[in-house]
Amino acid sequence: MSVLIVGSTALDSIKTPKREHPRLLGGSASHAAVAASFFSPVQLVGVVGEDFPKRYLKLYEKHGIGLEGLQVLPGKTFHWSGEYEANMNNRRTLLTELGVFETFNPTLPVAHQSAPFVLLANIAPSLQYHVLEQMQRPKFVAADTMDLWLNIAMPDLLKLLKRLDAFVLNDSEAHQLTKEDNLFVALKKIHKLGPKYVIIKKGSHGSILSGPKGFFLCPAYPLHNVMDPTGAGYSFVGGMMGSLAAAKGGIDTHIRRAMIYGSVVASFCCEGFGLQRTTKITRQQIEQRVKELEQLTRF
Amino acid sequence: MSVLIVGSTALDSIKTPKREHPRLLGGSASHAAVAASFFSPVQLVGVVGEDFPKRYLKLYEKHGIGLEGLQVLPGKTFHWSGEYEANMNNRRTLLTELGVFETFNPTLPVAHQSAPFVLLANIAPSLQYHVLEQMQRPKFVAADTMDLWLNIAMPDLLKLLKRLDAFVLNDSEAHQLTKEDNLFVALKKIHKLGPKYVIIKKGSHGSILSGPKGFFLCPAYPLHNVMDPTGAGYSFVGGMMGSLAAAKGGIDTHIRRAMIYGSVVASFCCEGFGLQRTTKITRQQIEQRVKELEQLTRF
Repeated sequence: MSVLIVGSTALDSIKTPKREHPRLLGGSASHAAVAASFFSPVQLVGVVGEDFPKRYLKLYEKHGIGLEGLQVLPGKTFHWSGEYEANMNNRRTLLTELGVFETFNPTLPVAHQSAPFVLLANIAPSLQYHVLEQMQRPKFVAADTMDLWLNIAMPDLLKLLKRLDAFVLNDSEAHQLTKEDNLFVALKKIHKLGPKYVIIKKGSHGSILSGPKGFFLCPAYPLHNVMDPTGAGYSFVGGMMGSLAAAKGGIDTHIRRAMIYGSVVASFCCEGFGLQRTTKITRQQIEQRVKELEQLTRF
Repeated sequence: MSVLIVGSTALDSIKTPKREHPRLLGGSASHAAVAASFFSPVQLVGVVGEDFPKRYLKLYEKHGIGLEGLQVLPGKTFHWSGEYEANMNNRRTLLTELGVFETFNPTLPVAHQSAPFVLLANIAPSLQYHVLEQMQRPKFVAADTMDLWLNIAMPDLLKLLKRLDAFVLNDSEAHQLTKEDNLFVALKKIHKLGPKYVIIKKGSHGSILSGPKGFFLCPAYPLHNVMDPTGAGYSFVGGMMGSLAAAKGGIDTHIRRAMIYGSVVASFCCEGFGLQRTTKITRQQIEQRVKELEQLTRF
């Protein structure tokens, strides 16, 4: 089945202590869509400006990503710039130019309104909700978020949460949302806000699922060289949704393995700047790391 | 087979935002010995003062811990006091009274010199080395450490590392020792200092083994209520050594499962102050959590 992915489509200028790459293809929807494309057909909904490089459109197309829902508007593409510290965990934003993203109003082509799997990748929760309102009974809806929305749009987020099957957030966001230090207690509190499945991302420490079948401790693939972690979280959730959409049987049967697939695609994402590594991998390389994770966690 | 455990035997006064417990049984050797006792016979080597409560000696004995190597000297028992913040990760030391520990010179009873499994729990690396010098060809030697020794006794630690089979340290100590942010690169660097097995502890994020058979990603048991994490790391390594000593077959065959046992005992340790919870558990409760960890990590 296919996955509809709505989110930001951006140009990312990324600095690390060793290197600097301007105007890479980035944004939550770009990372999630490429990650999902290894498993399922993907439809992208987003907005770019007239300056959006043709080669990035070709890159989407190379991955079979449907672009009917990608608006190209007069003006500039959303541009984000950030700098990482040597530990590759701490980063600071240097610049945010919203461009055409400022007035983004995602309108779904009719064909998209019946997509069975929907990923509301990180954008304002009011826009995520607006997309959901246009959908006809999707089978499974997941959303990602970021600290910014917890700071400035909490009522919108709480409204959205009631409509989600799965909610994905990182550990510091889980703390911010629940005021709870213990992640397992935080998970229980987040369920009460609506979602049946809650996933807390912990970066290089992996992720935790809480669902009807209890917890799942999902490992991160061991990386010896993290070039740029930008987009790894979006790759994780994109890979997971792509894998879920491809699976036969119910969500509970496959969600653990889908998280493993997401975790593996995220590991490749970290090994290059922006999407440079992710767009070069093969399904075979993904399967290889899934096997390694089986071996790395067996006891 | 039996495990010889050398380290600190102390009284811990522990404060958390909710509670305060003075003069609990503590120290690296106490935690490690109780943890190991669930799996193997244990011999303890340490020092206490004349103020050491009789009930703590009885607690050791209840766990079948051999006390022939426990010196009782005129003076006061090592007393440590610390306070945790609400997140239970950050803590500060309020007081350290070394007492008889200041002149601790571990001398092994003859019967202990041929112990097959040796755990050099956290004490000064020169003392850990001094113990090793008294041993006759042990089968497996592991050591733990702390940031203090990296700060003030690095040459001693480097000398010790050459003699170890396994070295256990936490993630910030691994960074301090190797100047390396990436844990997997740090593991490789630590191998070059001597030990064939290196284990990095990551608290609630579990631990990582690097050994001849590659990496193992060991999970932490999900805890909803951390009362006091003091001694959890020592419980982990003690439980691991006890389990290794009890196993038939080679180290490589059993070390992953031994870490899981260590992780489970450490989880119980966190659920009570000092050793209060650990000393009340049964082997059956341990096995139950091991099974749960299998279920929590399967995909």
